[in-house]
Amino acid sequence: MASSRMRHSHGNDTREVILDAAEKLFAEHGVAAVSNRQVSEAAGQANNFAVGYHFGTKSDLVLAIVRRHVPFIERRREEMLAEIKGSSDLRDWLACLVRPTVDHIASLGTPSWFARFYAQVMTDPVLRKLVTDEMMATPAMQKSIAGLGRFMPIWPKGVLEERGDMCRQLVVHMCAERERALQAGSATPRATWDAAAVGLVDALVGLWTAPVTPTK
Amino acid sequence: MASSRMRHSHGNDTREVILDAAEKLFAEHGVAAVSNRQVSEAAGQANNFAVGYHFGTKSDLVLAIVRRHVPFIERRREEMLAEIKGSSDLRDWLACLVRPTVDHIASLGTPSWFARFYAQVMTDPVLRKLVTDEMMATPAMQKSIAGLGRFMPIWPKGVLEERGDMCRQLVVHMCAERERALQAGSATPRATWDAAAVGLVDALVGLWTAPVTPTK
Repeated sequence: MASSRMRHSHGNDTREVILDAAEKLFAEHGVAAVSNRQVSEAAGQANNFAVGYHFGTKSDLVLAIVRRHVPFIERRREEMLAEIKGSSDLRDWLACLVRPTVDHIASLGTPSWFARFYAQVMTDPVLRKLVTDEMMATPAMQKSIAGLGRFMPIWPKGVLEERGDMCRQLVVHMCAERERALQAGSATPRATWDAAAVGLVDALVGLWTAPVTPTK
Repeated sequence: MASSRMRHSHGNDTREVILDAAEKLFAEHGVAAVSNRQVSEAAGQANNFAVGYHFGTKSDLVLAIVRRHVPFIERRREEMLAEIKGSSDLRDWLACLVRPTVDHIASLGTPSWFARFYAQVMTDPVLRKLVTDEMMATPAMQKSIAGLGRFMPIWPKGVLEERGDMCRQLVVHMCAERERALQAGSATPRATWDAAAVGLVDALVGLWTAPVTPTK
């Protein structure tokens, strides 16, 4: 369950309650559609400026939500990197990108909101850059990307960026859809998050190695 | 430009104005977040019940938006099917799925809203089914799916549905992101919709033919 892994110290209870409320509201309605005031209210804060007081701007709030998750993802990625050390299999390196996030979402239990929160953040170019920079900057992520580097063909201009965008869109939206389906109790193609992660890595291997057709 | 291909008869002007307003609002804010009243107001209708009067429920309104686009997509798909008749190349059949929609979005000019509208609809399980059933039911779509059928391996349970979901997510969200970037004047990995379509078909070939790792 979320509470067991995501609980923080008592001194920060108000902050944690606000982050929970904001993550859920942003996941459901989009970041732009939700005001700091609505977050304060949903968090049961008498003072409508509680969000501003504790976090500053909305971008700061979004980053604070992300930073609550990153250490769990980072730790799992370090474990996986230690396991695959020096692997020459593309699949291992793609798994290092995908698995830690999927495993973390799985650990949050149902309902979770992080996948949908992340999908919403991705639709805002400024927030997307802010959050992506934050998530890319960790040591394990840098090592994973460096490891993946050796499998990068010399592609025509734009294709590397495009394939990277595709990998991100696929992982983010498949996870968001699964998270939504689990909450609604509706059917999912895969029985477990574990199997869903295997399916995603399979697909990314195909996506990453697909031949590139030249364009004008 | 949108207007040249999407213009309709004068007798339906109010309906068209409402559909334009609804598509844009749904694209920007999500279908659930926008009321029929807000659509009526954005469409400059003095009567707040204009949407209900002209279209009925919100689901009816969503379907009416979709039905305005489908004939253009369908016509292009029929053309492509005629061109590739009997092809034994997976790529041709995947192109028949992807190209007609991308070409249609390109024909709408910038800004367009259809890709983002569609991405928003995809996040609502009930609307997703409604709209998907509508778009799948056309003769050219049925022929494309039948053509693709011969390239379907015997996959473990759930994988066919999963790969189908992945193709849909990839196309919908890559188009939505491109549409958003074009409106904002920001950078895109590919210079043209045409090149973006080539990139999507390349990726789908990889995604569709990627080996499946067995899971427990």
